[in-house]
Amino acid sequence: MKFVLTATDPAGSARAGVFTTDHGQVETPIFMPVGTVGSVKGVYHKELKDDIGAQIILGNTYHLYLRPGLETLRAAGGLHKFESWDRPILTDSGGFQVFSLTGIRKLTPEGCTFSSHIDGSRHTFTPENNVDTQRTIGADIIMAFDECCPGDADEKYAEKSLRLTQSWLERFCKRFDTTEPLYGYSQTMFPIIQGCVYPSLRLLAVEHALSLDNDNRGGYAIGGLAVGEPTEEMYRMLELVCPVLPAGKPRYLMGVGTPANILEGIDRGVDMFDCVMPTRNGRNGMLFTWDGVMNMRNKKWADDFSPIDPKGTSFVDSQYTKAYLRHLFISGEMFAAMIASEHNLAFYLDLVRTARRHIIEGDFHSWKESVVPKLMSRL
Amino acid sequence: MKFVLTATDPAGSARAGVFTTDHGQVETPIFMPVGTVGSVKGVYHKELKDDIGAQIILGNTYHLYLRPGLETLRAAGGLHKFESWDRPILTDSGGFQVFSLTGIRKLTPEGCTFSSHIDGSRHTFTPENNVDTQRTIGADIIMAFDECCPGDADEKYAEKSLRLTQSWLERFCKRFDTTEPLYGYSQTMFPIIQGCVYPSLRLLAVEHALSLDNDNRGGYAIGGLAVGEPTEEMYRMLELVCPVLPAGKPRYLMGVGTPANILEGIDRGVDMFDCVMPTRNGRNGMLFTWDGVMNMRNKKWADDFSPIDPKGTSFVDSQYTKAYLRHLFISGEMFAAMIASEHNLAFYLDLVRTARRHIIEGDFHSWKESVVPKLMSRL
Repeated sequence: MKFVLTATDPAGSARAGVFTTDHGQVETPIFMPVGTVGSVKGVYHKELKDDIGAQIILGNTYHLYLRPGLETLRAAGGLHKFESWDRPILTDSGGFQVFSLTGIRKLTPEGCTFSSHIDGSRHTFTPENNVDTQRTIGADIIMAFDECCPGDADEKYAEKSLRLTQSWLERFCKRFDTTEPLYGYSQTMFPIIQGCVYPSLRLLAVEHALSLDNDNRGGYAIGGLAVGEPTEEMYRMLELVCPVLPAGKPRYLMGVGTPANILEGIDRGVDMFDCVMPTRNGRNGMLFTWDGVMNMRNKKWADDFSPIDPKGTSFVDSQYTKAYLRHLFISGEMFAAMIASEHNLAFYLDLVRTARRHIIEGDFHSWKESVVPKLMSRL
Repeated sequence: MKFVLTATDPAGSARAGVFTTDHGQVETPIFMPVGTVGSVKGVYHKELKDDIGAQIILGNTYHLYLRPGLETLRAAGGLHKFESWDRPILTDSGGFQVFSLTGIRKLTPEGCTFSSHIDGSRHTFTPENNVDTQRTIGADIIMAFDECCPGDADEKYAEKSLRLTQSWLERFCKRFDTTEPLYGYSQTMFPIIQGCVYPSLRLLAVEHALSLDNDNRGGYAIGGLAVGEPTEEMYRMLELVCPVLPAGKPRYLMGVGTPANILEGIDRGVDMFDCVMPTRNGRNGMLFTWDGVMNMRNKKWADDFSPIDPKGTSFVDSQYTKAYLRHLFISGEMFAAMIASEHNLAFYLDLVRTARRHIIEGDFHSWKESVVPKLMSRL
């Protein structure tokens, strides 16, 4: 994977760049909609491309491994063909889901044994079979298999967890570097920097990961943040980690976050983001806009016949009114979740596109300072 | 409302025509997607127009009266503006819902008092306020307020029910003929022919309705069918009723039905249909095609990477595979319901469009005979 820096913000660490995969280019900073089981919930692929402007989407290895399963994905020719998406895909390793979704699980140096949340069947992920699994799913970017340490872990636990993650990373890299993609296009991998909220551990993690650096490491992910620690701690870790990561590779902050979190992340040097928030919160009636957050179930919208979001870029923003969308939520219509998901994803992509423009124009930091308070307000 | 007959089938009673409303023309025979609360469940309005080819959609007076309520609909400027749909809309009277959805209800010669299924609040529909309600909703075509008699009612009950429906129809027509539309475009009304499965009652109902005929009766509906009686009884009633209804006005068979039911209805002289089947059954995994019915949850589709429906007219039919759609259903993704609803509605519109072409070409009856067995088969 090739990454080219286009511009950096003089007043902060924000970067604009472009990375290239065999499924096309991605302009950074970028937000990646989450398509857990091969579907960005409630959104057509053509809308993802044409209306929302998604350049890359996510798939979840844990879910896809269980359903539809590797046999079906291999027979389909990989996830792109299976779900009909010809732009880049990134898959996580499933580590986070194994630790957060499954019941009985056993963690050993070898790997992790867990019970499916669907039927209770037992499975084991090891660094080696996790590479093979992600090769079979066929994402353009695959993530190292790690243990995601809770945000409130003590330093001793965090260190032990990091050691395990490091030994898994070595095995993961070795397997990745000695295997080939299955479907005729390239795959790259991102190590994940863990270390909880402990600066010395985070720096150790970077040092260790860089010792395994080569052309197969397309970028670096920062994991184990936004998992229970205070937001300021997250920002502090980014300020620590980003400067010591290679400038020539993209940095991906996993599972983050609110629009404000994303702009703050960009300001600290992060290039890639993903989060279920725009779709999950959307389904619950929460809309993100440049002017703040709206709870669409609120009575105050009942007779507001103005467009959903006059500043919105999606067709739903101008076509439908706040009153109509509120009515759909109150009536329990699935159409409400569709409109809200479409709007929120379009907004998140507009957010990073606008951030990118300001980075290129050289005024990102001051622009960010001016918009963050509004983004966090309630309408 | 103006209705022009374009062609009639020499071998049966099928008709092709066009009716004109202030929101545009509708080519008959037509299927009308059901948008109960102002949303055809899971389908964007732009897809209804451009992909599915819907020419007219339904709204349900009972639901819209309760939510968002008449005040909001009036403030919005009517249902078209509220839901952002500029083609024709037809509303039922809510009678069917009052009798099928609500708990405690009281039927008097004056009208019907019922409890909201949402909050238990008490409301009364009379023929007079039902006209006013449908004027406020603002559909192009509004339906008479009637009692929908169960399909297995005995003749005595059916006759008593018909008498009530007739007296309500007289009052409904009187109110309609002495009131005006609210939003600057015309509204027309359809009386509903009841009479259960009793030929003499059905003929009485037609005779009575025709005694109230004038230019405000844009067409005639046939109600109280597909409500529990054998399908053959339904066809028998259509054969009885259609020939004695005015040839110069469209005939609407309410709430029907399967693709085969629709073709049989057309063959007997029906011009308009509506049914929740394409969306409701679609949400449950049932897809209608020219080659028969598919249950998408079936294991047999798990590795079938052929397009959902090679003969389908919707973009989903060629973009997505059977294996992918099955995976979405099995995984409980709302995207499954979206794709299935989109496909089924596109199929229903393709069905009536193709029927219309065969009527114009003069071979409808034999064509229908050849396709009905396949439509009813299981794939």
